[in-house]
Amino acid sequence: MIDSTGVEMYSWARDLFPICRSLTGDGNRKTLDYIKKILPNLIIHEVQSGTQAFDWTVPDEWNIRDAYVEDENGTRVIDFKQHNLHVVGYSEPVDVWLSFEELDKHLHSLPDQPNAIPYVTSYFNRWWGFCLTHEQRSKLKPGKYHAVIDSTLEPGNLTYGELILPGKEEKEVLLSTYICHPSLANNELSGPIVTTALARWLENCDSRRYTYRIVFLPETIGSVVYLSRNLEVMKKNTVAGFIVTCVGDDRAYSFLPSPWGGTLADRVAQHVLKHHAPDYGSYSYYKDSGSDEQQYCSPNVQLPVVSVMRSIYATYPEYHTSLDDLSLISPSGLEGGYEAIKKCLTALENNFFYRVSFPCEPQLGKRGLMKPRLSQEDAEFPDTFTLMRLLHHLDGEHDLLEVCDRIDRSLIDCISIINRLLDEKIIVYEKQVRINDAQ
Amino acid sequence: MIDSTGVEMYSWARDLFPICRSLTGDGNRKTLDYIKKILPNLIIHEVQSGTQAFDWTVPDEWNIRDAYVEDENGTRVIDFKQHNLHVVGYSEPVDVWLSFEELDKHLHSLPDQPNAIPYVTSYFNRWWGFCLTHEQRSKLKPGKYHAVIDSTLEPGNLTYGELILPGKEEKEVLLSTYICHPSLANNELSGPIVTTALARWLENCDSRRYTYRIVFLPETIGSVVYLSRNLEVMKKNTVAGFIVTCVGDDRAYSFLPSPWGGTLADRVAQHVLKHHAPDYGSYSYYKDSGSDEQQYCSPNVQLPVVSVMRSIYATYPEYHTSLDDLSLISPSGLEGGYEAIKKCLTALENNFFYRVSFPCEPQLGKRGLMKPRLSQEDAEFPDTFTLMRLLHHLDGEHDLLEVCDRIDRSLIDCISIINRLLDEKIIVYEKQVRINDAQ
Amino acid sequence: MIDSTGVEMYSWARDLFPICRSLTGDGNRKTLDYIKKILPNLIIHEVQSGTQAFDWTVPDEWNIRDAYVEDENGTRVIDFKQHNLHVVGYSEPVDVWLSFEELDKHLHSLPDQPNAIPYVTSYFNRWWGFCLTHEQRSKLKPGKYHAVIDSTLEPGNLTYGELILPGKEEKEVLLSTYICHPSLANNELSGPIVTTALARWLENCDSRRYTYRIVFLPETIGSVVYLSRNLEVMKKNTVAGFIVTCVGDDRAYSFLPSPWGGTLADRVAQHVLKHHAPDYGSYSYYKDSGSDEQQYCSPNVQLPVVSVMRSIYATYPEYHTSLDDLSLISPSGLEGGYEAIKKCLTALENNFFYRVSFPCEPQLGKRGLMKPRLSQEDAEFPDTFTLMRLLHHLDGEHDLLEVCDRIDRSLIDCISIINRLLDEKIIVYEKQVRINDAQ
Repeated sequence: MIDSTGVEMYSWARDLFPICRSLTGDGNRKTLDYIKKILPNLIIHEVQSGTQAFDWTVPDEWNIRDAYVEDENGTRVIDFKQHNLHVVGYSEPVDVWLSFEELDKHLHSLPDQPNAIPYVTSYFNRWWGFCLTHEQRSKLKPGKYHAVIDSTLEPGNLTYGELILPGKEEKEVLLSTYICHPSLANNELSGPIVTTALARWLENCDSRRYTYRIVFLPETIGSVVYLSRNLEVMKKNTVAGFIVTCVGDDRAYSFLPSPWGGTLADRVAQHVLKHHAPDYGSYSYYKDSGSDEQQYCSPNVQLPVVSVMRSIYATYPEYHTSLDDLSLISPSGLEGGYEAIKKCLTALENNFFYRVSFPCEPQLGKRGLMKPRLSQEDAEFPDTFTLMRLLHHLDGEHDLLEVCDRIDRSLIDCISIINRLLDEKIIVYEKQVRINDAQ
Repeated sequence: MIDSTGVEMYSWARDLFPICRSLTGDGNRKTLDYIKKILPNLIIHEVQSGTQAFDWTVPDEWNIRDAYVEDENGTRVIDFKQHNLHVVGYSEPVDVWLSFEELDKHLHSLPDQPNAIPYVTSYFNRWWGFCLTHEQRSKLKPGKYHAVIDSTLEPGNLTYGELILPGKEEKEVLLSTYICHPSLANNELSGPIVTTALARWLENCDSRRYTYRIVFLPETIGSVVYLSRNLEVMKKNTVAGFIVTCVGDDRAYSFLPSPWGGTLADRVAQHVLKHHAPDYGSYSYYKDSGSDEQQYCSPNVQLPVVSVMRSIYATYPEYHTSLDDLSLISPSGLEGGYEAIKKCLTALENNFFYRVSFPCEPQLGKRGLMKPRLSQEDAEFPDTFTLMRLLHHLDGEHDLLEVCDRIDRSLIDCISIINRLLDEKIIVYEKQVRINDAQ
Repeated sequence: MIDSTGVEMYSWARDLFPICRSLTGDGNRKTLDYIKKILPNLIIHEVQSGTQAFDWTVPDEWNIRDAYVEDENGTRVIDFKQHNLHVVGYSEPVDVWLSFEELDKHLHSLPDQPNAIPYVTSYFNRWWGFCLTHEQRSKLKPGKYHAVIDSTLEPGNLTYGELILPGKEEKEVLLSTYICHPSLANNELSGPIVTTALARWLENCDSRRYTYRIVFLPETIGSVVYLSRNLEVMKKNTVAGFIVTCVGDDRAYSFLPSPWGGTLADRVAQHVLKHHAPDYGSYSYYKDSGSDEQQYCSPNVQLPVVSVMRSIYATYPEYHTSLDDLSLISPSGLEGGYEAIKKCLTALENNFFYRVSFPCEPQLGKRGLMKPRLSQEDAEFPDTFTLMRLLHHLDGEHDLLEVCDRIDRSLIDCISIINRLLDEKIIVYEKQVRINDAQ
């Protein structure tokens, strides 16, 4: 059941996978340029090294052209050109001959996963190093080695992308994804890809109720920098936010709540997942969080941000190794992640406080809303049981999301009944959704 | 353990069972006249066809004198005079000869219950039809049939009964029961019968704290009409309400809560049932409701109304068939239903906020409230453990119902201790019960 | 793992065990004089017989010099000098010859525990009697007996001890223990002994945040009298209170909550016990309470008082018999009870509302708070996982106790991290702990 969006998203993944992304640098610019071809209104921002952002400082820009280790015979035993993960992220430039013992201090491999190259970085502590499979490492012999990293680590910029899609309301929904992992597929490439598809769908929607703030940025430092420039408006307007990451494989669905639980973002995500993937795994903010929600939900920011994912980071064996490659994600995996978040946004757009217009039940029969028990007619009628249960609850005090939870129906499935009841003036809009009502 | 009330109620059931009740008509008037002999203060109201009540219109009055199907030989193969259920309720008049095939479109039977005549109505969609056992139907042969329904469906009135018993307080308790089912015993005849016995008991009580509003009306349209005439005063005054239905058999006890839960009505019903019938079945408003609570609890009415029942409608096999007859209910079944609701009303009358008069525990010994451990006296003493546990809780902030729930004692069983503590001035009344405090 | 405090406390128990304590009398004075040697600032109060205290009256003072039953041969068959429990507490003076049958009405033994002398009192109902083992009783033969109780029951005083240790705040923590049980070890002697050790530790603390109110008094009448003299200031200032009793054996840990649950006292006790003794038994105020919390928590007093115990009264077989002797308690048992309550007080002293100083996470690396992943350094670093989880929660709205509960860490273990974060100005004090915030 893979529709064209899944296939198209997978083709984007194939194009973007080989690019060497990091906190900063040209890999990130190439990635954002590719996305901007799909989303022409995307704005690409550059923030200078040394810029203060709360407790942080934007680091020097890192770019890498080549890196390798060769033996005395000039044979490359580790070669960055073969895999981006072979070099420790943010390695400073080096060009030295050294003994195996000395080299070994700069090598990283995984004894338990002998076929996997680990993903290692050293962003804020100057260092250099190489990563390789444990098999590869165990074949290295004593002797002299030539370690070369042709990188630059110099004042430059941090680069991020931003797309604001205005809606009828000032209130905003945030989609945040990160673009700092080189050649890793589920975590992270699925994130910017699904976000791009969601953004294109939102741009093409007839009318948007909410304003959408969609950002592509390096993890942690990127969201800290972004918040330092946009905190006030985001605190004022954000009704729900989603970290889009780990949305590409075909295994689990996962949910990471906000620290408080019960925000509109939590409620809509839990509602949608309950119907979309009832066996989804539910995680704990305080035990399992590990991405930009730690900035968006931090004590002095407190935005209602959650993560709706497929296999969550740090739980699957390929995580942060070269095994998290294009074979781990699939068109249907990406499609499932895309659909789950799209349903969250659709539910948000339709989640109002409705109120029945008069006391007691309506007389459905006279309005053609109930199939007469004793009749041969075969007209289309709405599901009367669901319709009546909705009417018992639409009191103007509980939003549609809560009503659907109580009667155990998917909000998405109730939209057509709601529209019919609005047309018949049996229900009216009561008031707008309260923001972060559970906080 | 059947006392005279159970036997007496069963004799009323025998008298009322044969009457053909419906939404409107003379069957309802006969039923109310019978009840008025027991409750002379009952007021019988007539509401004209065509009267608007919120989204509804009072329908034409239906009366039926005879109905039958006879074959070519003039033999009556279906005969309303043998059972009221043989005719579809609100059938329009008819007198036609037709083929078996044509007749068959107007017949209703239950293949899975071949001995039962189903109960079918067509109130708001003009139609005619006959109901019969599946056995009876399978014996009908091809040929011509003469279908006759000698009914009238003309402007007239909807009839209901109302009894207001004033109390010391304006605040009201509602008892609502319905009188529109012909020859069906547990659902519904047990309802008006137990309500009649409760009304007689309340009338004879020395002093009533609450005002009681007791209504006998046709289901749905009757409560809609009644609310359209009394909504304001009922919203202002109602502290608790009970739908009295399905209170005649000897099987289960059942509880249907209000949509909100936690109202005074919910709390008292759950407390009483926990002690009266600990294995009672608890149902869900949103999945299981099916009677006038759907009007009383509707979004713009929101009265705290619950149902305390024996076997709840739609769960027992005889429901809405000719098998729900006088053999399904019994004196002890009616007595049990009567006692359960009587205990709810008794608990409500005694449910005050009490407060201990002084700091620390009272010295029980000097007041003769505690049996001395070392003494040969054999005077009557209250249960010290219960008394002390009551005193730990009576803080003027929690009503007696809540206190009894916390200490796991029946409120009914605590009334004599409470009166003793009031006499000793160890406790005083703090304030009146809050209305619908949980809403 | 018995440190010197346990050994020292056990030596106090040995000294105090033989003293015959009661509601009033010289045994209590001797006990308080002993404690005053350890706590020189203890103030000993005397309250005259006949003094009113709420619903109670201070009784006559009881003193006993000797008591025995001798047979016709002058052989003492029951002798108070052999065990304080042989005489019913508050026995009036008597000197009579009587038959075995008459004597038998004044004897108490336990058929199910034939080796145990029961503990019996008759404080407010004049009586006299003897207690003995069932074995001893079964050997008594018909004949004449001489019963002598050389006691006085005359106007005098009720005696209690009080120690107020001022802190930086007016807000108080209460420690209350009782001194009215003769020669019973776990219940009650462990109580005043552990309280004495806690008081000495508090006196020697460098600086106290809270003021400590520490009282040694006879059970029930003592706390009623004390409250009648100090209610206003205690209601105004008490943030948490602990009944110190049953803290000497090596078996269980037990917790008796306040009637409301969720007070600061409940929260700190449950938090500490969860980490100190995860398999502690949790009891119910309304089913299991049995000591002075019934005065402190009574409806018009409502202080947040709980009990942190080892084997709780009324649950262990030796309770209120001569088997609750010095062999039932131990240095390690006393030490465990002492440590549990000391941790509660330590947690209270450190339980503030902290707030992170800036939006987003701090950059730990630049402050030396995070061990660099790729580095050979071996400096001491705080547990980064715990530190980060603390920072996610310290929002100025939840106290440290709640934060530690959420992240499932012991508050005691987090104090050093908190101090480090304060030093780094990453967190600041937000406001004082709310008093009894859950009430």
